[in-house]
Amino acid sequence: MSTRNYLADLSFVGTAYHGSQIQKNAVTVQGLFQNALEAVLGKLPDIKCCSRTDTGVHARHFYISFTSDVACDCVKMTAALNAHLPFDIRVLSVKEVSDEFHARYSAKGKRYEYLVWNGAVMDPFLTDRALHFGYPLDEKMLDETAKVFLGTHDFSSFCSSKSSVEDKVRTVFESGVTREGDLVRFGFAADGFLYNMVRIMTGALLQVSRGKLDKNDILLYLNGKKRDNLLITVPACGLYLTEVMY
Amino acid sequence: MSTRNYLADLSFVGTAYHGSQIQKNAVTVQGLFQNALEAVLGKLPDIKCCSRTDTGVHARHFYISFTSDVACDCVKMTAALNAHLPFDIRVLSVKEVSDEFHARYSAKGKRYEYLVWNGAVMDPFLTDRALHFGYPLDEKMLDETAKVFLGTHDFSSFCSSKSSVEDKVRTVFESGVTREGDLVRFGFAADGFLYNMVRIMTGALLQVSRGKLDKNDILLYLNGKKRDNLLITVPACGLYLTEVMY
Repeated sequence: MSTRNYLADLSFVGTAYHGSQIQKNAVTVQGLFQNALEAVLGKLPDIKCCSRTDTGVHARHFYISFTSDVACDCVKMTAALNAHLPFDIRVLSVKEVSDEFHARYSAKGKRYEYLVWNGAVMDPFLTDRALHFGYPLDEKMLDETAKVFLGTHDFSSFCSSKSSVEDKVRTVFESGVTREGDLVRFGFAADGFLYNMVRIMTGALLQVSRGKLDKNDILLYLNGKKRDNLLITVPACGLYLTEVMY
Repeated sequence: MSTRNYLADLSFVGTAYHGSQIQKNAVTVQGLFQNALEAVLGKLPDIKCCSRTDTGVHARHFYISFTSDVACDCVKMTAALNAHLPFDIRVLSVKEVSDEFHARYSAKGKRYEYLVWNGAVMDPFLTDRALHFGYPLDEKMLDETAKVFLGTHDFSSFCSSKSSVEDKVRTVFESGVTREGDLVRFGFAADGFLYNMVRIMTGALLQVSRGKLDKNDILLYLNGKKRDNLLITVPACGLYLTEVMY
């Protein structure tokens, strides 16, 4: 009996969850997905997640691979899993992948978006889904500033002190800021991201917007490995994992 | 002491509320707004709402006028009201209006939007904020069909039987369907709308999409004053009041 390897593409509103990774005594996306998978397959197979997201962080795409001893009809599997999941977590699709595929290690890169509402009054439809930032924000200037992150750098300063990863060098290949009315999008793509990296990079750009940092300060933080209290970590609610590149 | 007249522009996510109009033993947008206004002004003035919306219906703009014996700083008033309101109801602005202004009777027209998610799997970010419709939907054909609503008609067939309004003639000046990816927008503007009118017009178009009605059937319903079970009222969750024209 050969084991098959499947990849589920999920989307979830992170507000109600203690992040993606399974934990005891906390409701997580992985925990609920495992329960759904166990209900559908009759037993719990080996599963791998593409990454760990924090409490309140959202995902447009989040990938979980799992093995099955029996061949699955991917369309029926998608519907069956959704029937066992709450409405704020949806399996968008399931597909068969090669045996060697690993949801985390096979990823060549990831894309994240951080949403900022730049109106005087918060949009009620974006509560818990964007950061409200009421100060003036020049997106063209910030878009130009954001280009300093491009390339290969040591992102030690743009990483939570809780991170246990040794190698903090990452290559960023997209970094930009765009506006649509009062909604401002901070977009980043890289071969990998450190813990809180997008939230600290976005925080740095918002500090530039407020005149508390400039482009040269960011250049000093990049590679300089120094970290002071001028770098802030913006709240989780505005962060979206939008793509994993395989 | 002269009384001044003010107009508040609100936006709300309707999911948690039993509609806009105040009711005993139910949480409503008007009820919460009145509580906030009473807290800010120290007493409850006379207030008028632009319309009544059903349980679960949303508003990008919803207007409430109120009187005050004292002159208000509109920016401070906006912030003070928001401080007394939950995050899913926001006052976008407050402005002074003429004594004769009435939030409901001064309206020259209204615009509504009905959102349909036309993907195989529902977008979790649109739970309670759009209708999930998984059947094929040709938005160009429906946009053309939607034009039958344009002009002045007797909309008796496109109105809840609970409606107590006598004159059911309305003039529709915008009626169309557009798509952005899997999100399909049904947009209507008219000098006024009957109870459930947008939900029944959208339902009729979705029935056309499924081949259960055609353009001629809608023409028969319009002005024909007949109503049979082929007209459906789509759920409240996809409906947005998007503009009131004064």
